[in-house]
Amino acid sequence: MSQSTPTKRKKPESNNASASTTNGGSHQLHSRELKRATTVSYIYEDEENTMEGKIKPLNGFVTPLLTDMYQITMAYSLWKNNRHDIPTVFDLYFRKNPFGGEFTVFAGLEEVIRFVSDFHYTEAELNHVRELIPDCDPGFIEYLRQLDSSDVSLYAIKEGSVVFPRVPLVRVEGPLAICQLLETTLLCLVNFASLIATNAARHRLAVGKDKIMLEFGLRRAQGPDGAMSASRYAYLGGADGTSNVLAHCFFGIPVKGTHAHSFVTSYHSTDDLPDQTIKDANGKSHNLLDMALKYLKELDIKTVTSELVAFVAYARTFPKGFLALVDTYDTLGSGVPNFISVALALNEIGYQALGIRLDSGDLSYLSKESRKMFQQVGQRYSIDFFAKMQIVASNDLNENTILALNRQGHEIDVFAIGTNLVTCQAQPALGCVYKLVEINGLPRIKLSQETNKVTLPGRKDAYRLIGEAGHPLIDLLTYSGANCDKKKIADQVPQPGQKILCLHPFEEQKRVIVTPSKVQKLHQLVFDKGSLVDPLPRLEDIRSFCLEQLTHIREDHLRASNPTPYKVSLTQELYDQLHDVWMSSRLVKEMK
Amino acid sequence: MSQSTPTKRKKPESNNASASTTNGGSHQLHSRELKRATTVSYIYEDEENTMEGKIKPLNGFVTPLLTDMYQITMAYSLWKNNRHDIPTVFDLYFRKNPFGGEFTVFAGLEEVIRFVSDFHYTEAELNHVRELIPDCDPGFIEYLRQLDSSDVSLYAIKEGSVVFPRVPLVRVEGPLAICQLLETTLLCLVNFASLIATNAARHRLAVGKDKIMLEFGLRRAQGPDGAMSASRYAYLGGADGTSNVLAHCFFGIPVKGTHAHSFVTSYHSTDDLPDQTIKDANGKSHNLLDMALKYLKELDIKTVTSELVAFVAYARTFPKGFLALVDTYDTLGSGVPNFISVALALNEIGYQALGIRLDSGDLSYLSKESRKMFQQVGQRYSIDFFAKMQIVASNDLNENTILALNRQGHEIDVFAIGTNLVTCQAQPALGCVYKLVEINGLPRIKLSQETNKVTLPGRKDAYRLIGEAGHPLIDLLTYSGANCDKKKIADQVPQPGQKILCLHPFEEQKRVIVTPSKVQKLHQLVFDKGSLVDPLPRLEDIRSFCLEQLTHIREDHLRASNPTPYKVSLTQELYDQLHDVWMSSRLVKEMK
Repeated sequence: MSQSTPTKRKKPESNNASASTTNGGSHQLHSRELKRATTVSYIYEDEENTMEGKIKPLNGFVTPLLTDMYQITMAYSLWKNNRHDIPTVFDLYFRKNPFGGEFTVFAGLEEVIRFVSDFHYTEAELNHVRELIPDCDPGFIEYLRQLDSSDVSLYAIKEGSVVFPRVPLVRVEGPLAICQLLETTLLCLVNFASLIATNAARHRLAVGKDKIMLEFGLRRAQGPDGAMSASRYAYLGGADGTSNVLAHCFFGIPVKGTHAHSFVTSYHSTDDLPDQTIKDANGKSHNLLDMALKYLKELDIKTVTSELVAFVAYARTFPKGFLALVDTYDTLGSGVPNFISVALALNEIGYQALGIRLDSGDLSYLSKESRKMFQQVGQRYSIDFFAKMQIVASNDLNENTILALNRQGHEIDVFAIGTNLVTCQAQPALGCVYKLVEINGLPRIKLSQETNKVTLPGRKDAYRLIGEAGHPLIDLLTYSGANCDKKKIADQVPQPGQKILCLHPFEEQKRVIVTPSKVQKLHQLVFDKGSLVDPLPRLEDIRSFCLEQLTHIREDHLRASNPTPYKVSLTQELYDQLHDVWMSSRLVKEMK
Repeated sequence: MSQSTPTKRKKPESNNASASTTNGGSHQLHSRELKRATTVSYIYEDEENTMEGKIKPLNGFVTPLLTDMYQITMAYSLWKNNRHDIPTVFDLYFRKNPFGGEFTVFAGLEEVIRFVSDFHYTEAELNHVRELIPDCDPGFIEYLRQLDSSDVSLYAIKEGSVVFPRVPLVRVEGPLAICQLLETTLLCLVNFASLIATNAARHRLAVGKDKIMLEFGLRRAQGPDGAMSASRYAYLGGADGTSNVLAHCFFGIPVKGTHAHSFVTSYHSTDDLPDQTIKDANGKSHNLLDMALKYLKELDIKTVTSELVAFVAYARTFPKGFLALVDTYDTLGSGVPNFISVALALNEIGYQALGIRLDSGDLSYLSKESRKMFQQVGQRYSIDFFAKMQIVASNDLNENTILALNRQGHEIDVFAIGTNLVTCQAQPALGCVYKLVEINGLPRIKLSQETNKVTLPGRKDAYRLIGEAGHPLIDLLTYSGANCDKKKIADQVPQPGQKILCLHPFEEQKRVIVTPSKVQKLHQLVFDKGSLVDPLPRLEDIRSFCLEQLTHIREDHLRASNPTPYKVSLTQELYDQLHDVWMSSRLVKEMK
């Protein structure tokens, strides 16, 4: 995807040069792209990543023009007023956890780093900019032509971390104009990714760690790439797989799926299945339909025959992977008995059926009744695995319906979650913001009548203080601004075993003394003036990190109803700094 | 975008061949892409579209693998059981209008047609499929290799139409396997597009036709292409422009934007603006800051100086397009007076400022107070345009807040709507479904315990019956199935001036006799066995059609609170057909 954007990529030749040419010379470009798409390992192992130290966004739309118009007009004005190169610090953070919860999973960092690393304007993009600005000074286009991220550094919390309001997720340092030009794209990349990852983590917590959770949302997702992002970040946040084949191909996410209602309704009678045979492991042929009908007779159940025919057709094709959708006509009256008869027939010739999918009705009741039938049949025919037949549920599930199912009791093994997971129905947007906090060494503030919207001025570091029991207790922001002397910066760094005064940013009476057992520095330098610092972690590893992180957070911060807020505090130094800047920036109003 | 998908495009050479080579030979591919991205007209005028009759999706992710896994396993089973070539009819439709409303705007058809037209598997994609199916029969890969849409036809309602539940938006006719393989992608393309277009239309109705409505949602959108789709379909549904520069470049949507808070906070004092001069139309230099300060003194208002400096810096850059964000420190106490002083200064040297943007606070009050100040100053200095200064509002607007503003009264000229427009916060998914309705000439039904979810079996046509006043009265579905004789099909076609019995699909007592003044056939053949029937309409034209359509729908169907449902009915023929199939498909349960 990434190197094939229409308006980007200066050197298509060099892309070709690094291509393997499995398809022969005339398909060089194509085979290169093939390589990219075929295996996720490409993303991490591609030569260009290591050779030039440059990496490219995974999504072709992620270019410098995927931005708001005002970023370009502002950059123009900054350049015209010779302000573009002033050193600045911007914070990217959110003010409120989504879904009424008290935690968020940070995601999207990899694409952020890729975008920043690759930041440059192609000639086509420069032409666009020229058209967008009336009477555009040619010098500005020249300026943009040479502009890249070689003066930009990113400090970030590790992707997949559990994070909290006001702690910067990414701190961007560099010249004013380019930092401004990065804003919208960075927000777009972090907002949705973190929202989906958080949503997946919440669903994962609801489902429980012993169950399987799949993301099945492609058809209802917010556009083709809304779907691709959703699959990626749902996996990062805890899903075990997706139905989205392209997400499997691009990101290596396990992919799952069997058949739909239309497959069942496409069969009308036994005439639709002229060949009803199946071969066992020894190559011997059996009539699967006759065998299934024999079992139905033994069990004395009358079912919809066309459904049985569809199941037999499917089982013939996938004898080792037979999982049937059982609610097309009547779940307990037809679907489950039909499945059982085919599963018994398969068992007779050495194949083990997988289970059923329930897509409508009372999932608690239907799953329990289905389980009972599996147990009874398993007992009657002395087939052990029958009782453990997998039950997949997939009807408009969300966090609340899963929690309700848990209360009612159920026999579901796999939760396939679609719409609610990928569109974040409960809250479809995360409100990350990107704020200038320091310019030319001076802390800057953005005021607001809503106190919660006042920014925390100055360059800041963040530390997570861990308690004796291994749970994070509080996140502490320290002041590390350019005008703060080194000793003061060092003095603020919290040390294990030492008492640390932590202050609420806006309410002076809210203070707490914390003695951490362990201290984690939250921000790492991930992109250093144009260069990647460490190799990008694999999606798999980010996912594992995220799942592991969640086990350390206190349960009351994570729970779905009335969770406890996690504290984010300031050192005295940062608190004083905030209130000094605030006082000096605020007009004293006169009342007449 | 479209021709550069990693795993697609058999003939990159032919793409190059049709390129204009403005950048010289070595950049052939690039200049071709430049052409694509530079002007939306490319999409419609590109040679390959007309030469080969083939068109390609606009989005690179839109490939046959952007699908659910089970479509591939089903296709495999259909092929293994020799069912893949059976002629079928599938309906794509929704069951419930979104946002608690009673209408929907249909969008996404262009990309659907592009996808179907271009449908084919590349070698890379075939490799993926081979890996996904255990013990995959090589014959299936051969089958997929030659598979394209040359046996597929699409009948569709015109994109941009106002549509209602159960009326098929797209009727897909063709061999079973390929029609099944199209399902997920078609749903993904129609669901989000129609959802956004409908949301935009609702916002447009709330804003009113005399105001300007802009889409400003990129940063909160659901991923990079969630943003691109949102910009496209928000425009289609009635937005006047976007902030998204890339959407402008790709789709030709007007783009708008000025500056952000960070631009204001990046200025600290007059020292930050060494050059305070501006040239008038005659090239004469003036000190803009001094002039603005003079006016502030005359008006006797004390404002935040750094904000004034920022405004002066911006106005120097865009003297003809000066629109200031006025809420960084204090809207009425500093922002508006600062804007006024700069606008007066600009006016003195022949430039007309545009207006202000309000991004926080009570928009009703602030817009009215700002308007008063503009009027007073305009009067004091005898400057007519001052009273009409544009007021843009952009703080978390949605349909309800806009309707509330209308009730409270306001002086807003431009509504810039972000999060709520692009993420459809009020309902982030539309539930389009894709159902098999006919196979091998036989109507098929999908039953459900929820009556509303029962499908309408058989191939159907749809007619919109228009009343004397020019308003649509009812949509009528007729039965045109393969087993319905030609006379019966013809007899059902409603004629102007004739009484037509229209029946509710599920409630037999709900019937109505309609005498239409005019009858519109809703479905047109848009893709005929592999070929585009008519050129694709331009986005502009779809938008105009949509806006025009909305003017014909009765206001009570469109209104935000307690709208009247629009009727969708069946002919007697279709009603009988539905209930026959339903009865014969339903098991008679035995109670023991």
